[in-house]
Amino acid sequence: MSRLSLSDADKQARDWFAETTQSLGCKVTVDAMGNQFAVRPGTQDGNPVYAGSHLDTQPTGGRYDGILGVCAGVEMLKTLNDNWVETSFPVGVVNWTNEEGARFPKSMVSSGVWAESIPLEDAHNLKSVIPANDTATMKSELERIGYLGSTPASHKSTPMAAHFELHIEQGPILEAENRRIGVVRGVQSYKWFTVTVRGKDSHTGATQFRHRADALLTASKMILASHKIAHRHSALASSGILTLKPGSTNTVPGFVQFSLDIRSPKNETVDEVEAECKEAFKQIAAGADVDSGTAPSERQCSVEWKTDFVSPATFFHDDCIKCVQEAGNDLCGHGEVKDLDIGSWGKAMTSGAGHDSVYTSKRFPTSMIFVPCRDGVSHNPAEYSSPEACADGANVLMGAVLRYDKL
Amino acid sequence: MSRLSLSDADKQARDWFAETTQSLGCKVTVDAMGNQFAVRPGTQDGNPVYAGSHLDTQPTGGRYDGILGVCAGVEMLKTLNDNWVETSFPVGVVNWTNEEGARFPKSMVSSGVWAESIPLEDAHNLKSVIPANDTATMKSELERIGYLGSTPASHKSTPMAAHFELHIEQGPILEAENRRIGVVRGVQSYKWFTVTVRGKDSHTGATQFRHRADALLTASKMILASHKIAHRHSALASSGILTLKPGSTNTVPGFVQFSLDIRSPKNETVDEVEAECKEAFKQIAAGADVDSGTAPSERQCSVEWKTDFVSPATFFHDDCIKCVQEAGNDLCGHGEVKDLDIGSWGKAMTSGAGHDSVYTSKRFPTSMIFVPCRDGVSHNPAEYSSPEACADGANVLMGAVLRYDKL
Ligand SMILES: NC(=O)NCCC(=O)O
Ligand SMILES: NC(=O)NCCC(=O)O
Repeated sequence: MSRLSLSDADKQARDWFAETTQSLGCKVTVDAMGNQFAVRPGTQDGNPVYAGSHLDTQPTGGRYDGILGVCAGVEMLKTLNDNWVETSFPVGVVNWTNEEGARFPKSMVSSGVWAESIPLEDAHNLKSVIPANDTATMKSELERIGYLGSTPASHKSTPMAAHFELHIEQGPILEAENRRIGVVRGVQSYKWFTVTVRGKDSHTGATQFRHRADALLTASKMILASHKIAHRHSALASSGILTLKPGSTNTVPGFVQFSLDIRSPKNETVDEVEAECKEAFKQIAAGADVDSGTAPSERQCSVEWKTDFVSPATFFHDDCIKCVQEAGNDLCGHGEVKDLDIGSWGKAMTSGAGHDSVYTSKRFPTSMIFVPCRDGVSHNPAEYSSPEACADGANVLMGAVLRYDKL
Repeated sequence: MSRLSLSDADKQARDWFAETTQSLGCKVTVDAMGNQFAVRPGTQDGNPVYAGSHLDTQPTGGRYDGILGVCAGVEMLKTLNDNWVETSFPVGVVNWTNEEGARFPKSMVSSGVWAESIPLEDAHNLKSVIPANDTATMKSELERIGYLGSTPASHKSTPMAAHFELHIEQGPILEAENRRIGVVRGVQSYKWFTVTVRGKDSHTGATQFRHRADALLTASKMILASHKIAHRHSALASSGILTLKPGSTNTVPGFVQFSLDIRSPKNETVDEVEAECKEAFKQIAAGADVDSGTAPSERQCSVEWKTDFVSPATFFHDDCIKCVQEAGNDLCGHGEVKDLDIGSWGKAMTSGAGHDSVYTSKRFPTSMIFVPCRDGVSHNPAEYSSPEACADGANVLMGAVLRYDKL
């Protein structure tokens, strides 16, 4: 699946979402970030309990990441209709814009604006990084595809009773341990950076190593160093984007820019890895890194960091976690659920990936439901969850929403 | 200077070259690679002695690399005219196409076809690597700008008595030793490769190091390894191009491709560095490189090599070298030149960069003249040679051509 946020393909999916939920009796609101809120009335007025996720994907993504959560929400609306179920309060489904942060490089940016954690203007001005040389911004693309809504993008304009998000695990644990449901307690901490290395363009054949300021060799050392530092802290560091200039076989590149994504369950660990990388990169740029095999140089590179995105560790709401647990037990269960204890059908876990639930949880009670996916593979066309796993997830999602509605 | 081969800017420079040399009394021939040969008649017919170089540049190049050699050739034609000099045989100036190998990634490709070392079809089918996403080939661009000549690109159709090439040194030696002229004896050996690393796209937040096949981390290790291996052999290894897929901050890249340029004065050393890099890259891709700080992984990458260009070590012709030496002595000299001994004004040297003279020397007597350039900088807009150095070079170029004409 390749459905970059606010592309023509995304517009098609959005149109489908609006038409489908309207035909199921919902009122659909679009806000200034293109977030779509579909609401089915309850017997009383009040803030809806939402099921939410996203319909955008990575450039070479799968068919489940985000999509499962939205489709299971739509399925919930159908099931409630088919069974003439009336909820006490409204229930809704939300499609959040650009959750992936792939095209516009801030993940969960639109739930972030809605939570008032990210300024609207910063989000609107985000520039596309895919396709290459694209000059579109979020705002220009929202306008182009007709999804720059008139409702302010704010939790004040579209408040919630609670937010539940069903998602594939994107990791291998549930599959390996043969569990049907992940009861997600929170999301790990992460930060995104753009690192810029400046050296000097020079001739590959006529410039000795000692006269070079090779930005690509320097960036290569930095990427390797970030990996080692993260590994030492049992954290993660990853570079997914790298561009360079001028880009000729026989010119040593004088300019390299790369992304750096640092994650750990603990904020302090992310900060430590960041600090150690900053120190190490400074040493590497100055040629002061100690490595016996590399050639010394009289010329240095410079290094510059830009922080693109910060998502501190998130801890979900006990009431929501309990609703998921009880719904899991209803579906798969054996015996009674003691407090926050989970049966062998499920597992309490922390998400490695960020989700819009990170931002909804800043304003309203939130939690998530994971289902197993094959080999833990995600952000890859091979992503797969069985129909049974998807159905499990959809059942627990609806169960949790209905339990919260009762609460 | 940014004048990529066969661009609109290159067409302008070519038009200037044709008009100028024609106005100086030359007949201009264009061959099937767009090489331009301007010939000034002598008192007798026969193969011309050529001064030659190139007018194309790197994407962020200088104003001397190649251009000095062609302009000094044109200046030679003017000087001969102004002084009513008649040469015994014709003399000429040649502008070789795509010497840089920057846009079409084979350096000296058009002198290579002319020397019958590179098949015409391979050259015509070369695809542009700059600008990104360009689909042009050498042939389509030659046609587009009107420089697909009707003369076969072959030394048989446009033979030479000899070829002399004036060029900036592109290195720091002449400047450091305060010498006015480099008497170039030959060109070092080099090979160009494209290395492709395939791993697996995966989620940066949800994929532990041990489940990754990270093509960018792997390529980073390879670039660093090639640097160390080359350093150990007192050779050079450089990567100037790197592209990756899919290119998203939160997807571990599953595909990386980079260029590798290996050089040494000795063919055997280039071969040794190549062989050691091949072995090292295989180990790195398989995760079998021994490095205490990196995380082990259950998933491997694959690595694939493509050889793009091979230019073995070149040794120029004694007669031509002697002409340059004598012309240098005429200009700067002190006393007699003993055999291949050079006065303090000059220095015998080997070129680190490739030049079209590599290919002309395969067919006809050839040598080169270097002049100092500031800080040895080339393939950079800061490239600079003083007017005095340029004039020295032009004088020695004309002196060498006239001496060879007498020979
Ligand atoms: N679920 C998911 O893939 N979210 C994207 C944000 C992240 O990078 O974690
Ligand atoms: N002189 C020069 O820059 N030639 C380009 C070919 C090479 O890479 O050496």
